Amino acid sequence: MQQLKNWACFGGQQQVWKHRSASLDCDMEVAVYLPPQAAAGVPLPVLYFLSGLTCTWENMVTKAGAQRYAAEHGLILVAPDTSPRGVDLPGENDSYDFGSGAGFYVDAVQAPWSSHYRMYSYITEELPGLISSNFPVDTARTGIMGHSMGGHGALVCALRNPARYQSVSAFSPIVAPSQVAWGRKAFTGYLGTDTEFWKSYDATALAAATAWRNPILIDQGTADEFLESQLKPHLFASACAQAGIPVTVRLQQNYDHSYYFIQSFIGDHVQWHAKALGK
Amino acid sequence: MQQLKNWACFGGQQQVWKHRSASLDCDMEVAVYLPPQAAAGVPLPVLYFLSGLTCTWENMVTKAGAQRYAAEHGLILVAPDTSPRGVDLPGENDSYDFGSGAGFYVDAVQAPWSSHYRMYSYITEELPGLISSNFPVDTARTGIMGHSMGGHGALVCALRNPARYQSVSAFSPIVAPSQVAWGRKAFTGYLGTDTEFWKSYDATALAAATAWRNPILIDQGTADEFLESQLKPHLFASACAQAGIPVTVRLQQNYDHSYYFIQSFIGDHVQWHAKALGK
Repeated sequence: MQQLKNWACFGGQQQVWKHRSASLDCDMEVAVYLPPQAAAGVPLPVLYFLSGLTCTWENMVTKAGAQRYAAEHGLILVAPDTSPRGVDLPGENDSYDFGSGAGFYVDAVQAPWSSHYRMYSYITEELPGLISSNFPVDTARTGIMGHSMGGHGALVCALRNPARYQSVSAFSPIVAPSQVAWGRKAFTGYLGTDTEFWKSYDATALAAATAWRNPILIDQGTADEFLESQLKPHLFASACAQAGIPVTVRLQQNYDHSYYFIQSFIGDHVQWHAKALGK
Repeated sequence: MQQLKNWACFGGQQQVWKHRSASLDCDMEVAVYLPPQAAAGVPLPVLYFLSGLTCTWENMVTKAGAQRYAAEHGLILVAPDTSPRGVDLPGENDSYDFGSGAGFYVDAVQAPWSSHYRMYSYITEELPGLISSNFPVDTARTGIMGHSMGGHGALVCALRNPARYQSVSAFSPIVAPSQVAWGRKAFTGYLGTDTEFWKSYDATALAAATAWRNPILIDQGTADEFLESQLKPHLFASACAQAGIPVTVRLQQNYDHSYYFIQSFIGDHVQWHAKALGK
């Protein structure tokens, strides 16, 4: 891994690294925040943040204000990119909700996407391996969270891997991609038309099938412009209730889909993960 | 004033307004954060944040994380732009350190700049008038702060108007513009070649002439790439010591010139202003 940036921040270090990804067959950037406690070398809990459509690592890192809370609680924060980059597939840059910046955290099986767009494997396998080889993380204390498309990613990663993640939360997540336009477009393109297969990447469908039983925290703004059309958190809440998975959906009055919303509640989320991860 | 944006944020509202400026003879945007306490209608202290070269209102508003602290302490935050916009003067957009995005908070007297580039009057007269007419501010409790070029602006505004501002602080300010390249270029262009006249916009020169005696807080990163060449806070510290103005310059180890630095200490600054402004 090659270090691109290293900013002092809240007594720790906000770093950006570049590395070759085998799963994605391209170079990737990833941001890592090391809180002041990391200097002692004792392994710390690690919290992944998956971003939404059009984002890179930079959105969360510059706009969420999470470093303050990570420093307070002694968590390492990892912010990956949202898709493979620079792989030059035809049409890759044509829309904001498919291709570059819109990997949807799935392993594509449709050509030509299947040769690069394997974000699920990257996030759940390759990246954690790289992180634990290069930073003082206690992999037995791993949390994951995300926003919008990244909230979908966080929920799917956790529900499919209850042994790998100990905590999960989300801001304004796409909880039922099979049932909304963003998800249907992405899943058709990456996964094909077999909607049965889509269920393995649909948090609402996964609720019935997962062994996950830890509490899940979701914050959702009531003034979110995508709430009715793309997000529909009640679908996930119902599926969890039926499956016996404890989920708290907090409807936050007047908040929208932006980082002004995220920055207002990310302190709660980081604290919540820190508690769940035993810090 | 026309409202362009209104985001819920930390229980208050992060707004952006557009208005016609008489001093600048153009339309301007300004960001105003109203903390939750503003809903009660009781006048609140107001804190202006002046940004640095190339910035608009947006940099501080999205990257500094100041809203959390303004909400905590009940301060209204005002973030103006850094120059007139869209006035189409020849060469206005040719360099990052002069013209658009680089108004230097002076009233230009050189043509063609003098017809629009009057940021000093805008910041100290016109904008406070607009703010107090449109928001529940207690103008007797007004603080001002800034970063880099905006730190210079904040210091100059306060030192020249000790009755108008009750508190001032800065991150990595240009404290002696007459003595550094950024300042000499800007002052020559906006003010002409009479260096005696420059003193009215040079915080280090103003120290000997001002009635300001309130404490001044400055944070400066030791890894700031502009520290030696453009900032030189020791020049201001010496001038203040000689004049009997209490100034604290905190040299923050390893921090650079970025918003990672600002976000790490802005909580201290907002709290410090809140205390000085009697909240």
